Order: sequence, then structure tokens, then C-alpha cells
Amino acid sequence: MGMMDGIDVLVSEVGPRDGLQSIRPVMPTAAKLRWIDALVAAGVREIEVGSFVPAQLLPQLADTGEVVRAVKARHPSLHVAVLVPNAKGAEAALAAGADKLTLPLSASETHSLKNLRRTHAQVFEEVARIVDLLSAVPGGQRPQFEGAVSTAFGCTLEGEVADTKVVALAERLIALGCDEVGLSDTSGYANPAQVRRLVKAVHAAIGPERMTGLHLHNTRGLGLANVVAGLEVGITTFDSSQGGLGGCPFAPGASGNIVTEDLVFMLEAMGLRTGIAPEGLEAARAVLAEALPGEPLYGFVPEAGLPLGFRRAA
Amino acid sequence: MGMMDGIDVLVSEVGPRDGLQSIRPVMPTAAKLRWIDALVAAGVREIEVGSFVPAQLLPQLADTGEVVRAVKARHPSLHVAVLVPNAKGAEAALAAGADKLTLPLSASETHSLKNLRRTHAQVFEEVARIVDLLSAVPGGQRPQFEGAVSTAFGCTLEGEVADTKVVALAERLIALGCDEVGLSDTSGYANPAQVRRLVKAVHAAIGPERMTGLHLHNTRGLGLANVVAGLEVGITTFDSSQGGLGGCPFAPGASGNIVTEDLVFMLEAMGLRTGIAPEGLEAARAVLAEALPGEPLYGFVPEAGLPLGFRRAA
Repeated sequence: MGMMDGIDVLVSEVGPRDGLQSIRPVMPTAAKLRWIDALVAAGVREIEVGSFVPAQLLPQLADTGEVVRAVKARHPSLHVAVLVPNAKGAEAALAAGADKLTLPLSASETHSLKNLRRTHAQVFEEVARIVDLLSAVPGGQRPQFEGAVSTAFGCTLEGEVADTKVVALAERLIALGCDEVGLSDTSGYANPAQVRRLVKAVHAAIGPERMTGLHLHNTRGLGLANVVAGLEVGITTFDSSQGGLGGCPFAPGASGNIVTEDLVFMLEAMGLRTGIAPEGLEAARAVLAEALPGEPLYGFVPEAGLPLGFRRAA
Repeated sequence: MGMMDGIDVLVSEVGPRDGLQSIRPVMPTAAKLRWIDALVAAGVREIEVGSFVPAQLLPQLADTGEVVRAVKARHPSLHVAVLVPNAKGAEAALAAGADKLTLPLSASETHSLKNLRRTHAQVFEEVARIVDLLSAVPGGQRPQFEGAVSTAFGCTLEGEVADTKVVALAERLIALGCDEVGLSDTSGYANPAQVRRLVKAVHAAIGPERMTGLHLHNTRGLGLANVVAGLEVGITTFDSSQGGLGGCPFAPGASGNIVTEDLVFMLEAMGLRTGIAPEGLEAARAVLAEALPGEPLYGFVPEAGLPLGFRRAA
């Protein structure tokens, strides 16, 4: 892919949010900060550090406000992202000083009711409230606001999800005032042909600059194949999780974010710059493993090692 | 990838050769035939059933002649492939009635000496002898003869392998009389950009019709991503192994063929016809598991299941 040589790709680490919310142990705040420090040292430029959901729903992320504040203080240039399910969460995210707010909207309304306990109409009301909140923030401090369409490639409860539905939801999110839209393969149903087709359809509807990111799972082993398809149609941001930690606890059978270590290896080997050093990820993985004793960590590259003579993208 | 809808892709099952040679247990001939029967019932059209190497080197494949004869008798329309390291092996393959002979040539001469115990020059002599042997076979019965360039994407012993070296070897194999050339990622070093680049270079040198197949490993998790890249540059045959059995026992740390179950799922989901039914593969996997108790079988789709509402390519 000579045509893409040297292109910068943003690997957005979601382990501290998507990974930690999916496992039983609650990682202490100090351990989260050590892990995030190590990720930043490896060159990671964006991290989703938590989710502003009620502590009784996800005790693993109850310290999200504290984490955001501490991380912003330690790493001023890191793009600190958080998940916000509603306007209340967005208020907390604003107060903490997050750089990016991501609101999930499930294309499958069945999944939306199970996951967010809201209909599409109710989610749109929250989006409108958040846009109002953001409009009061002074320009330079206004965080980015992304609407993330989950189950965009199919749903474990509803099955196939029509492209037209995803496109319509993306259009609506932009119309309501989201800065951009992301697509999530929550169920691990996506295939490369579908990724190309759906991304193109969404780009045609809202403009390619409004949809730059994909959140892919490796549930059926197609995660990196889908990344390749995404790259071909102009996607430049990919979510991944160190050690493949996490997935979606509300979609039975669907687990497994794509593994940061494997994704970074692939992109760098392809000549695409991530800014992330594989050796640095190895060190961060050791910090993670120490903080989560007994928790399985995944990944092919951590097992097999880098190829002999491997060089990062120039 | 609407442009590829309905294209036929040949999934060439190498488990009975590459898989079985890589594990300790020796599968009885009757069990091999039951497994192959089940693969054929699933719709598999080409199977590499063994290798004509000395029995003391690979006792697991000592019955290759018997397997070829039995499989040809039971499944006349199946394309029965075998590996032949030299002219002696080719004679045995011809006597047994194999439909396709594949001779491995390692781009890395260090690997060639370790794996085939031959220099490139010595391998070329064997190729010339095999071409002579084949020229004596009556037209309709002449099997296909492929030269497979292994370690084509890098070598665990030599590191980087230059594209120019692979291209030169491919040209030489064709000049000597091979019908076609295949490329093997023996070490699991390939990345999608490299697959596109090297396939294009080989196609430019010998013609796309002389290089249609890739043998990819999933050592670093990029196997299916590399398939996507291969599809884009016109590759229509992919080797894979049921349960991901096998790899290369002579390349330390490099194991793991791409998994037939995952490959077939991906291709069919993309709208590419393999002729293979996932449910049939599930049945064949059960036969395999019964014949190899305790042996680990891999694959994401066998773990996660097919997506709700999944349909094969039309």
C-alpha cells in the first residue's frame, strides 16, 4: 500500500474504559494511572479512560472523574476521552475536563434498551441536552463530541442491521450537533466488504471528515481484516484495547476488542505511523498484568514476538 | 467489495499435510480418510493430503501414497494435492495419482538448508528432474506442478527477505517448467501492504495467471488481514488448515496456519463463494477432534458461532 506510506493513524486505547468495565476486579485508581502513564510513555495519543455511568452499574469505573483529572494533570497533551451515556454524564465529564465525550447509540433498539435502557428517541433527547451544555463552554475548552453508533454491523439480539438505518442515525446525530460519528462493531459481526460498504455510505451521507473512527471487535477473528478494509476507505482512527481486554458485557457471546499490540504491529509494519513503540506497549502490558493478576490478556504479537529485523514506519 | 461479489475463491485445505506433520500423534489412515470425507462433504474442493518425504523424517505422513489412492477412489472430483520435496517424491506422487504436486523452495537459503537440506541450486535440479518426469505423463493425466516459495515474506533465521529475491526465484521456477508459483508466509511475518506489493511484483514478472495462491500463517494475528490484501490484488486460492492445525516445525516460533473455519466465514460473509458450508466444517471439526484427543484446535468462529441471521454468499 505504497499510497498510504507514512500516513498517520490514531490508535485510540479503550482498555481503561471498555476493558476494565468488562471484568470483575476493580482496578485501584493508582494502578489505572500507572497503566495510563505506561501507555503514554509508549506513545499512545488518545485514551478512553472511563465512563460517567452510575457507580452501582459499573463500580469498576466509579473513579472516572478522579482519573480524568489526574491524567489531565500528568499528561496535558494526551487526548483524554470518556464515555457519557447521558447529559448527566456529560456534565461530570465537562467538570472533570475531558477532551472528548463519546455517547453510544445502539443501532439496534433492542440492544439500546438493554444497554442504555433508552429508546432511540430518548438517546436523541440526551444528545440535544449535551449539545446545549457544550454550547455554553468557551471555544478553546469545548471538548469534542462524538456519537458512536454501536451494533452498526449487526446485533446479537436483532441479527442483521440495515445500512440505511445506520446512515439515518449518523445523519440524525450530526443534525443534532455531534461533531462526528463513529461506528462500532459491538457484536463482532463485521466483515471487510461490509466495512467498506457501510463506511462509504456514511461518508456519502455526512461527509468523510465527520466519520473517521471505527471501534472493531475480534470476536470472529476478523478484527484486523476489518481494519485493512477501513484504511482503504479513509478511516484514520481505530479503537483497540491492550491485551484485548473487554468487549461488550451486554451482548452475550460478543467479547474481544482488537488487541492494541497486534494493531500497532500491523499498522507500523504496513508503513503507517502510529507514534507508538511496540517495546513501550510491552512495558505497559507488564504494568497491566501486574495490576490484574490472573486476568487473561490476549494478543498474537505478545506471544510470537516481533519479526526478526522488524522496523517501525519511518 | 461489491466488485468482488460472487467471485469464486478456492480454499485449499492443508490440514492433513501441514497440520498433521506438525503434531506428535500419528493419525491412523482410516481416521485421515474419515476426516477428509467430512471435509469433502462440507464442500472442500482441494485438499493437500500428505507429503512424499522419508517416513523416518515425518512418520505422521508415511501413509501418503495409500491416502492419495484411497481418496482418489472415494472422491474422484476432489483435487488431491501433495507436497514433494524432490524428484523421488514426485515419482511416488505420480504413481499414486495425485492431481497436484507442490515443491517447496525456501527464499531464505538458510531455511532451505534446515528445512529441505538443500541449497537453491540443488532444489532447482530437483525441479528440472520433476519437469522431465512430468513430460513423460500423457496429457490428460499430467498433474499440476507448483513451486511454492516459502519464507517469501521474511525468515525467522535470516530476517527480511528482499522482494527482488522472491521475484527472481519465481521467474526461475517458471523458466524451469513449473506451471505456477505460490507464495508462503512460513514465518508469519507478512503484512497486508507487503502482500499487495510482493504479489504485484511477482504478477508483473511471471503473469497473474501463474501466481494465484497464497499460503498464509496467523502467527501474529494478521492472517485474515493478509487474505483481504491478497484478494485485492487478484489472489483466488488460499491455503488454510482446519482448527489452525500446523505451521512450520522448522521455523521456531512460527506456528499457526490460518483457520479454515474463520477463513470460510470471512469469505462467505464478504459475498465470495467458497462452495464450503460452515455447518459442514463444524461436522468435520468434530471428526478431527475425535481423531486427535487432547490436541488443541483453534479458531474464533468455532468459539463464537456464526452471527445471528448469517447467510452464505449467493
